[in-house]
Amino acid sequence: MQDPFMQAAIAQARKSLAEGGIPIGSVLVIDGQIVGQGHNQRVQKGSCVLHAEMDCLENAGRLKASDYRKATLYSTLSPCDMCSGTVLLYGIGKVVVGENQTFQGPESYVQSRGVQLEVLQDPECVQLMQDFIQQQPELWNEDIGE
Amino acid sequence: MQDPFMQAAIAQARKSLAEGGIPIGSVLVIDGQIVGQGHNQRVQKGSCVLHAEMDCLENAGRLKASDYRKATLYSTLSPCDMCSGTVLLYGIGKVVVGENQTFQGPESYVQSRGVQLEVLQDPECVQLMQDFIQQQPELWNEDIGE
Repeated sequence: MQDPFMQAAIAQARKSLAEGGIPIGSVLVIDGQIVGQGHNQRVQKGSCVLHAEMDCLENAGRLKASDYRKATLYSTLSPCDMCSGTVLLYGIGKVVVGENQTFQGPESYVQSRGVQLEVLQDPECVQLMQDFIQQQPELWNEDIGE
Repeated sequence: MQDPFMQAAIAQARKSLAEGGIPIGSVLVIDGQIVGQGHNQRVQKGSCVLHAEMDCLENAGRLKASDYRKATLYSTLSPCDMCSGTVLLYGIGKVVVGENQTFQGPESYVQSRGVQLEVLQDPECVQLMQDFIQQQPELWNEDIGE
């Protein structure tokens, strides 16, 4: 059975896909409750900074440092340099990654800075990305700066 | 005489201050032209992701990888983990920093990843931050995740 928080992140990814966007989703969990969710907004808002994790954190709003410390950020895909840097800025304690086969951010660096990182290698997350990249390789490359 | 692009970044910082916000500004320059400018939006938009550099990049819009590569990002203050990560994601070639006395992001790491970095140690940038931090230390701490 899938982690319910990763299920919620996947639901965000599917919502983005249905809107014509990039299928990556994210949720922020504090004390067992989802306090923010979001998805990639490159297509929908023409945004270059609202990756799923950033949109999720933005939707969670301004939080206290003590809340970030005990938070877990779920993302359907391994966080890139930008999103990983945001985890480090706010001292988010843990990141749960749907998959890192399609793309892998600076996971070792993030761990070396004290963040707990778990990779689920969820087949549904992998499939979402592989189908998308096959269909829209240019959009995907734009999203990761290539 | 001040660098005209840093002057533009400082103008953004002063605009933010006049709006009741955090006085950090940024501009993105490509081929000698400003293609985006912005300032911290924590107060103005209740944003936790729109640091000055992020707001600037968002305002510049969706750019090609080849444009980011030849771009220079100016910021009145040393970019934090989030903004530095964004520089790395997009492969922005150069960062010009107003000052790093008040706060220093992961400059060595950014340089080790191939980004050119120049610190101007501009007294006006230092003064802006020192006055602000003295007046609103809690807001400042929130902005850097402390």
